[in-house]
Amino acid sequence: MITMSKSREEEVHLLGNQNVEYKMDYDPAILEAFENRHQGRDYFVKFNCPEFTSLCPKTGQPDFATIYISYIPGEKMVESKSLKLYLFSFRNHGDFHEDCMNTIMDDLIKLMGPRYIEVWGKFTPRGGISIDPYVNYGQPGTKYEKMAEHRMMNHDMYPETIDHR
Amino acid sequence: MITMSKSREEEVHLLGNQNVEYKMDYDPAILEAFENRHQGRDYFVKFNCPEFTSLCPKTGQPDFATIYISYIPGEKMVESKSLKLYLFSFRNHGDFHEDCMNTIMDDLIKLMGPRYIEVWGKFTPRGGISIDPYVNYGQPGTKYEKMAEHRMMNHDMYPETIDHR
Amino acid sequence: MITMSKSREEEVHLLGNQNVEYKMDYDPAILEAFENRHQGRDYFVKFNCPEFTSLCPKTGQPDFATIYISYIPGEKMVESKSLKLYLFSFRNHGDFHEDCMNTIMDDLIKLMGPRYIEVWGKFTPRGGISIDPYVNYGQPGTKYEKMAEHRMMNHDMYPETIDHR
Amino acid sequence: MITMSKSREEEVHLLGNQNVEYKMDYDPAILEAFENRHQGRDYFVKFNCPEFTSLCPKTGQPDFATIYISYIPGEKMVESKSLKLYLFSFRNHGDFHEDCMNTIMDDLIKLMGPRYIEVWGKFTPRGGISIDPYVNYGQPGTKYEKMAEHRMMNHDMYPETIDHR
Amino acid sequence: MITMSKSREEEVHLLGNQNVEYKMDYDPAILEAFENRHQGRDYFVKFNCPEFTSLCPKTGQPDFATIYISYIPGEKMVESKSLKLYLFSFRNHGDFHEDCMNTIMDDLIKLMGPRYIEVWGKFTPRGGISIDPYVNYGQPGTKYEKMAEHRMMNHDMYPETIDHR
Amino acid sequence: MITMSKSREEEVHLLGNQNVEYKMDYDPAILEAFENRHQGRDYFVKFNCPEFTSLCPKTGQPDFATIYISYIPGEKMVESKSLKLYLFSFRNHGDFHEDCMNTIMDDLIKLMGPRYIEVWGKFTPRGGISIDPYVNYGQPGTKYEKMAEHRMMNHDMYPETIDHR
Amino acid sequence: MITMSKSREEEVHLLGNQNVEYKMDYDPAILEAFENRHQGRDYFVKFNCPEFTSLCPKTGQPDFATIYISYIPGEKMVESKSLKLYLFSFRNHGDFHEDCMNTIMDDLIKLMGPRYIEVWGKFTPRGGISIDPYVNYGQPGTKYEKMAEHRMMNHDMYPETIDHR
Amino acid sequence: MITMSKSREEEVHLLGNQNVEYKMDYDPAILEAFENRHQGRDYFVKFNCPEFTSLCPKTGQPDFATIYISYIPGEKMVESKSLKLYLFSFRNHGDFHEDCMNTIMDDLIKLMGPRYIEVWGKFTPRGGISIDPYVNYGQPGTKYEKMAEHRMMNHDMYPETIDHR
Amino acid sequence: MITMSKSREEEVHLLGNQNVEYKMDYDPAILEAFENRHQGRDYFVKFNCPEFTSLCPKTGQPDFATIYISYIPGEKMVESKSLKLYLFSFRNHGDFHEDCMNTIMDDLIKLMGPRYIEVWGKFTPRGGISIDPYVNYGQPGTKYEKMAEHRMMNHDMYPETIDHR
Amino acid sequence: MITMSKSREEEVHLLGNQNVEYKMDYDPAILEAFENRHQGRDYFVKFNCPEFTSLCPKTGQPDFATIYISYIPGEKMVESKSLKLYLFSFRNHGDFHEDCMNTIMDDLIKLMGPRYIEVWGKFTPRGGISIDPYVNYGQPGTKYEKMAEHRMMNHDMYPETIDHR
Ligand SMILES: [Ca+2]
Ligand SMILES: [Ca+2]
Ligand SMILES: [Ca+2]
Ligand SMILES: [Ca+2]
Ligand SMILES: [Ca+2]
Ligand SMILES: [Ca+2]
Ligand SMILES: [Ca+2]
Ligand SMILES: [Ca+2]
Ligand SMILES: [Ca+2]
Ligand SMILES: [Ca+2]
Ligand SMILES: [Ca+2]
Ligand SMILES: [Ca+2]
Ligand SMILES: [Ca+2]
Ligand SMILES: [Ca+2]
Ligand SMILES: [Ca+2]
Ligand SMILES: [Ca+2]
Repeated sequence: MITMSKSREEEVHLLGNQNVEYKMDYDPAILEAFENRHQGRDYFVKFNCPEFTSLCPKTGQPDFATIYISYIPGEKMVESKSLKLYLFSFRNHGDFHEDCMNTIMDDLIKLMGPRYIEVWGKFTPRGGISIDPYVNYGQPGTKYEKMAEHRMMNHDMYPETIDHR
Repeated sequence: MITMSKSREEEVHLLGNQNVEYKMDYDPAILEAFENRHQGRDYFVKFNCPEFTSLCPKTGQPDFATIYISYIPGEKMVESKSLKLYLFSFRNHGDFHEDCMNTIMDDLIKLMGPRYIEVWGKFTPRGGISIDPYVNYGQPGTKYEKMAEHRMMNHDMYPETIDHR
Repeated sequence: MITMSKSREEEVHLLGNQNVEYKMDYDPAILEAFENRHQGRDYFVKFNCPEFTSLCPKTGQPDFATIYISYIPGEKMVESKSLKLYLFSFRNHGDFHEDCMNTIMDDLIKLMGPRYIEVWGKFTPRGGISIDPYVNYGQPGTKYEKMAEHRMMNHDMYPETIDHR
Repeated sequence: MITMSKSREEEVHLLGNQNVEYKMDYDPAILEAFENRHQGRDYFVKFNCPEFTSLCPKTGQPDFATIYISYIPGEKMVESKSLKLYLFSFRNHGDFHEDCMNTIMDDLIKLMGPRYIEVWGKFTPRGGISIDPYVNYGQPGTKYEKMAEHRMMNHDMYPETIDHR
Repeated sequence: MITMSKSREEEVHLLGNQNVEYKMDYDPAILEAFENRHQGRDYFVKFNCPEFTSLCPKTGQPDFATIYISYIPGEKMVESKSLKLYLFSFRNHGDFHEDCMNTIMDDLIKLMGPRYIEVWGKFTPRGGISIDPYVNYGQPGTKYEKMAEHRMMNHDMYPETIDHR
Repeated sequence: MITMSKSREEEVHLLGNQNVEYKMDYDPAILEAFENRHQGRDYFVKFNCPEFTSLCPKTGQPDFATIYISYIPGEKMVESKSLKLYLFSFRNHGDFHEDCMNTIMDDLIKLMGPRYIEVWGKFTPRGGISIDPYVNYGQPGTKYEKMAEHRMMNHDMYPETIDHR
Repeated sequence: MITMSKSREEEVHLLGNQNVEYKMDYDPAILEAFENRHQGRDYFVKFNCPEFTSLCPKTGQPDFATIYISYIPGEKMVESKSLKLYLFSFRNHGDFHEDCMNTIMDDLIKLMGPRYIEVWGKFTPRGGISIDPYVNYGQPGTKYEKMAEHRMMNHDMYPETIDHR
Repeated sequence: MITMSKSREEEVHLLGNQNVEYKMDYDPAILEAFENRHQGRDYFVKFNCPEFTSLCPKTGQPDFATIYISYIPGEKMVESKSLKLYLFSFRNHGDFHEDCMNTIMDDLIKLMGPRYIEVWGKFTPRGGISIDPYVNYGQPGTKYEKMAEHRMMNHDMYPETIDHR
Repeated sequence: MITMSKSREEEVHLLGNQNVEYKMDYDPAILEAFENRHQGRDYFVKFNCPEFTSLCPKTGQPDFATIYISYIPGEKMVESKSLKLYLFSFRNHGDFHEDCMNTIMDDLIKLMGPRYIEVWGKFTPRGGISIDPYVNYGQPGTKYEKMAEHRMMNHDMYPETIDHR
Repeated sequence: MITMSKSREEEVHLLGNQNVEYKMDYDPAILEAFENRHQGRDYFVKFNCPEFTSLCPKTGQPDFATIYISYIPGEKMVESKSLKLYLFSFRNHGDFHEDCMNTIMDDLIKLMGPRYIEVWGKFTPRGGISIDPYVNYGQPGTKYEKMAEHRMMNHDMYPETIDHR
């Protein structure tokens, strides 16, 4: 017999719903939010997303990346299945590496108003170079804004060893 | 011939006791504490728990995670075998990832009143995304509260490389 | 000053040609071949292709795999840029894991008539399981047919450690 | 627009069907098969299953393993979602390590009559020792029976380095 | 509710029995066997034992090793908890590396009469050199004797990289 | 159908332009810049460049390095294909390790006036020693100058393990 | 011909002395110190000790750990061979994980009065959980006391990935 | 005082000779051989060459590879410094991946007439695919010819995991 | 044609000079310096030196270490080939681990007067323990002195995992 | 109380004998043998020796290697401490890589007359290339001679990935 917490069930529509439509053009309207049950506490949620792919806007050839999204929720949280579908919507969309990362963070800020959020993309190489953009954000006028600045200042001082093999 | 320290023997009931019952529904009453013998000193104890499993409250399918629990004990410490049984009690319990982590930390705070504690869950992927919630806590009004804030601000700036293989 | 071997230049049209069209539906006609310059010798060429993606024919959700293609050429060899475009053409195509691998091998056999070929796909997980199909082929009636049987019999006796993280 | 191969759609009931029931007692009837579309060719399919858990029949404590299942299909193949649910049905079932592996292989042989199959479980440690059973099978009277004997004779001559950390 | 297979319960005395005595001098009488339930089939069971320690018979200083024991059972199998206690009995016993490995294999052959067995010890270094003995055995006059010879001939052709750090 | 952002298309000439000339003598004029679309935000872009090679100015023998370039853009950003060609122009150029790193950073500062930039080269060994120069820069008189000092002070406190194999 | 520094020779009795006695009960009197030759400078010495083993005081079963000891010496330093023998004396001694770490640090503080010291034990798992205690110390009333507090506050924010295999 | 074997000194001109000329166009005349001192025995010599670079004959862009050369010497052996200079001579030479490997092997066969030789190149990726050619050779009419066939038949059945990062 | 920067050529005598003498007794006079061309900027140079060996002053047995030397140059820099020969001069020299590290740093400070320098040795084990000394230095009365203190305070909080294999 | 096997004590003189002399010129007379106690059985003993160093006979500069020695003993076995001293005697000896390996194997064959033996050296790089010689031997006229040939034919078909970092 399974015991379950019921409170999130009405809010979230996608989880456990088979008839979803996989949209292949960029569409931020796919994102869904639900209420953060632990608003009295700061905590992190990280999404590891190794299946991101978009198209190069100049050549049309596919780009691939692993994206790491970490945030401290405010009142709302992003539902994970809707995030999956949202990221999937970049599949046939053309945009540059750093623009994708900025767009994803902007859409998530608009959706849930997080206290803090960061998005890091690590792309596969083209022509012997791979590119890894990193963006972050803290609510303006709060300690989270300082947190964003602090993490930007200390970002990636130990770059992972890359040899493209 | 084995020489042993005897002082903890009366307090702890589970270690070396074969007739334990494995409860399969969430039950915080399983947790047992004993007295910290080194209260004059701050020190860390970390539990590595790669065998955590619970159920998705929407679909009923099993979730798997490795959980890292680190704390600086106050007057009491959690007995490790009772912790094992407690974590086992999530086996047939349905709850979301971030709710499990918050619940575990809340139960351990209630049990032992630690100076500082943090709980980090790293789940296996569903639909191409894996989720890693992180919560922490320091005794309000003490330096440990600042410590919690400091560690939250600097949390996971080097996300491990994840490719779901 | 760059010294170059000229003999392959007329045969191959794609390499160094910018105006390629990225087709997003499966199309084996994209594949191009050129003549093997070392036909008097058996040798292997392996392609490592970590950017393969197709769609699940039932749910429409994207699948991702790394594909390893190894072959001993006969009279013809597959041009690598055309191979890239061919694999790209699965991007919006729906097919099951093992069917993709069989299709890729069949198309390459038809294109170049290799002495020996094998195709191994390693997919990212869905629902806690990942699937890795492996197919191979040797020219019927030759020692390469026996080679295929030998390699099938000894295939993957040391499966790589997989934990989906 | 997505192009799909249609032929397997009627046979398989589970994939893309949300209303599945997660059974928590061992039940081989969960397994579903579909027809192998490439019966004229030997090929391998491997399932990586890092989320297997059962119970110790003596102590009732949970066991955890990663299971690797590899087979060469005959006329039928096991549907992967039904395999997931089947493995899940061991969750509250008590059986010894090597018995679980034998049972899983026997059930899959009965379901699909594979040409060749092997099952390798790698369990987490108890009391300083971890246990890894390996079973295999080839159709009696065929070359696959010899293949099974050959692979047993050469099994795991390079045991992976294990330190239980 | 837990479903269990009952047949092994009477045979095995140690598992789930708390009042075991940890003997610290070498004692092969600790080993217990139970009946192999799958005698109609060849299969492997491997024990990974990273907690082996004995004493140097000349200097008295402790030696440490990881031991890998793999075997194909005949009529009997070694009970894993008794194996743990048996290995523990080397703790204050003095013997050379290669003698320990030969002794362990001899004791297990005497206990269970396996079809095939091998024991590989990998010791920590002393004075800049580490030593790894490997012994194996197949029932004389059977195919398993040939199997032992085959595996000895092909043993460890890819020695793991060792730098003592 | 591919949807694309158009705004950068006119600025960048190299991407998608086949008729580039690979210059083999150091030439900073190759570098091209385009406008940063997200000037209201600090963010990092990192280039992983494992294919850097130059010549030793004393012996003429080739040197090889992996170079990591990370920067926070100001008004301009370096176009990645022009960066590739620029780095390629060191191929037949003779300069010492640390001079190469200083030159690359100086050229990129002159090109785009970044808020912050750092360049780290990790060279292959000669005569049993490998050399890794690291340089950084922040706009004088801004917080980025302090950032550079902060990152220099905390640089590489965990040197990667190197054994030249 | 070997040139040597002679000054430490009289102080240290164990190094190069074969007739040492390996005591198997905990005995801090084994520890020997010698004078720090570089007292005008702060520097670290770290001991990596992967061969630590003690006994569980409740069950008598052996525990295994790797211990990392790091310190900034004051006037005295611990002689490494005596440290080896001291750690060996826990072999047949029963004590809990965190008590062992506290005892080791206390004994080393008493022996040499270090400016700063820390001891980190990483134990092998029991019942699916492994435990890693960490203790540290700085001379009271000095900057090293603050250093200890600083390092405790920032301890282990990137727990190593543990899967007990 | 250094004791040395003198016999090879007259034959080899490059080792310890500073005034070498680094030729940047392909030139097999650079290769030097010396006499094999152990002709009564088969043994392998492997060269690991991670610093190979050539040019793409179509685009002129640089290619990079790690090359592994293994051989059983006959009467002659290749001098390692001359091999280094020879490989360096591909630096500004344009040739396809598989042609480079065939050329290198042919030149070494002509130089030293080895009993057996193999050359394996592993290139960095272009456009999401990396290519690894493998060639081998055994003296015709000898057991080494069969050896070459045997190794070709069993070549690379465990392709290394490649993700181009 | 090779283009080279000429300015360092007169200063450095060792690079490209074959007639060097390998001294086998410790000799700091081997070290050579040249002028730092980038004195207006702080930057790091790191030397990875995995081939360090000296002798134990008590037993005469050889010690082996990897040494990491990192520094911010002032007016002078150490020439890398002279550093190689200097480190080689410890080959038959007897000194304790921590004394070697202090000596190396002292000699380099005397040679070049760096702004900041640190030396970290990681030795292979003896008797089950390995030892890693770390020393650093900043110019007294400058910010680099504070930098040294800061880096000492934060030194090695994540000790690498060591198991001596 | 330590229980020990006594039989080897009289034969071996070095183990536990402090007054050994470390010879620094090549001297095979250092090697000592003792009787194999398990002559009725084939088994392997492997020595991992990561601390080998010799001198280049042309330039006098030090060479470093990890050596792997594996053998099946006949009537005699090499005593490990004498092996350590023997390998140490190459420290100031000049010889080429492949000559060292042949010499070591020849000396061990002469010492103990093994049934089978192999020696594999893996050297650190010079000038961008590292060299790994491999030699083996089986008693002429026995199955071990065939074993040597078999292992030579199948040697190192999966060369370890080398990048000299
Ligand atoms: Ca890599
Ligand atoms: Ca992974
Ligand atoms: Ca893992
Ligand atoms: Ca993994
Ligand atoms: Ca491990
Ligand atoms: Ca290493
Ligand atoms: Ca190692
Ligand atoms: Ca390395
Ligand atoms: Ca692990
Ligand atoms: Ca592991
Ligand atoms: Ca990967
Ligand atoms: Ca990789
Ligand atoms: Ca380990
Ligand atoms: Ca290690
Ligand atoms: Ca690498
Ligand atoms: Ca490497």
